[in-house]
Amino acid sequence: MVKYPNGLEANFPVKKEQATKRLSFSDRGMTLEEQINESNEYYLEKQIAVVHKKPTPVQIVKVDYPKRSKAVIREAYFRQASTTDYNGVYRGYYLDFEAKETRNKRSFPLKNFHEHQIVHLENCLKQQGICFTLIKFTTFDRYFVYPASQLITYYRNPKLKSIPLTEIENSGIEISCGYRPTLPYLDAVDSLIKDRKK
Amino acid sequence: MVKYPNGLEANFPVKKEQATKRLSFSDRGMTLEEQINESNEYYLEKQIAVVHKKPTPVQIVKVDYPKRSKAVIREAYFRQASTTDYNGVYRGYYLDFEAKETRNKRSFPLKNFHEHQIVHLENCLKQQGICFTLIKFTTFDRYFVYPASQLITYYRNPKLKSIPLTEIENSGIEISCGYRPTLPYLDAVDSLIKDRKK
Repeated sequence: MVKYPNGLEANFPVKKEQATKRLSFSDRGMTLEEQINESNEYYLEKQIAVVHKKPTPVQIVKVDYPKRSKAVIREAYFRQASTTDYNGVYRGYYLDFEAKETRNKRSFPLKNFHEHQIVHLENCLKQQGICFTLIKFTTFDRYFVYPASQLITYYRNPKLKSIPLTEIENSGIEISCGYRPTLPYLDAVDSLIKDRKK
Repeated sequence: MVKYPNGLEANFPVKKEQATKRLSFSDRGMTLEEQINESNEYYLEKQIAVVHKKPTPVQIVKVDYPKRSKAVIREAYFRQASTTDYNGVYRGYYLDFEAKETRNKRSFPLKNFHEHQIVHLENCLKQQGICFTLIKFTTFDRYFVYPASQLITYYRNPKLKSIPLTEIENSGIEISCGYRPTLPYLDAVDSLIKDRKK
């Protein structure tokens, strides 16, 4: 695409899907993780919330300390995380969530979750944390905040392999992609907090 | 030291310091990090709180995927953390803290803290988190929960290089080493929560 100095783009024909995507801001080619990180940066900057992604846990075995340059890790292994990926604080509330995406169109497969993530969410719920999962249906570019309590009920039912989209539409809260923040998921969190107070 | 099959140790003369340490449970040769991790495991197991140490942030550059064995990280670098080391949830409260030790006898040097840790604590306080630092004076084997608000006041005063022990004794809450948990720091957190409600 040609960009002119005044910032306008050359008016080439655009496929319908692209055009729609641009209008709704959409994911702009970002991964779900990038979208969440960008939103968290916005929330932090505006002093709305403090939420960070936890670093990938790594077991470090060998480190070189070359002269006049920084330490290099030469042997390390990925470790299993014992928590979810994101946590933080918002208006006095502890937030804890995991982000997942699926290409499925009608349901969200439960095999996307690991036992330790579910156990961690159960533990945080017992401590009155606001716990949820942020689910993206990539095919439709749809995003949902889905309460951890519901997720756990489905996960703990050995007969179920997935959560139907209709159930996620009913019990979850859909998020519309925005510009800033990219994914205004705290609007949905406000609803979770309200529901809890009832 | 010789260990006999019945679990008793040979009765060699023990230095006075060692004997005293054993009586007070003390650190049993553990690092401060190990003491906190062990306490957090206890709190988790007893469903008292969910607090985890964040993994060391690492920038991964090169990963090998050998056949029939797990992925090996062959080149990676330590990154600067943007938060403190510990956070979690306790009775609905968001907890956030950093643990530090000093060999000093009369004061705690402020150079032990990095700007980003202070900024992070400031941000979390604004979101009504319970924020503090867990300070160990290694020489005396004394442990304190010291409120982040006080720490920030000292850190932000360019004339001050350290926090006097007397101030930490006054504004902080001393923790006695225990058996389980090793460092019952949540007792001190209860006081912080009470103070905030006043």
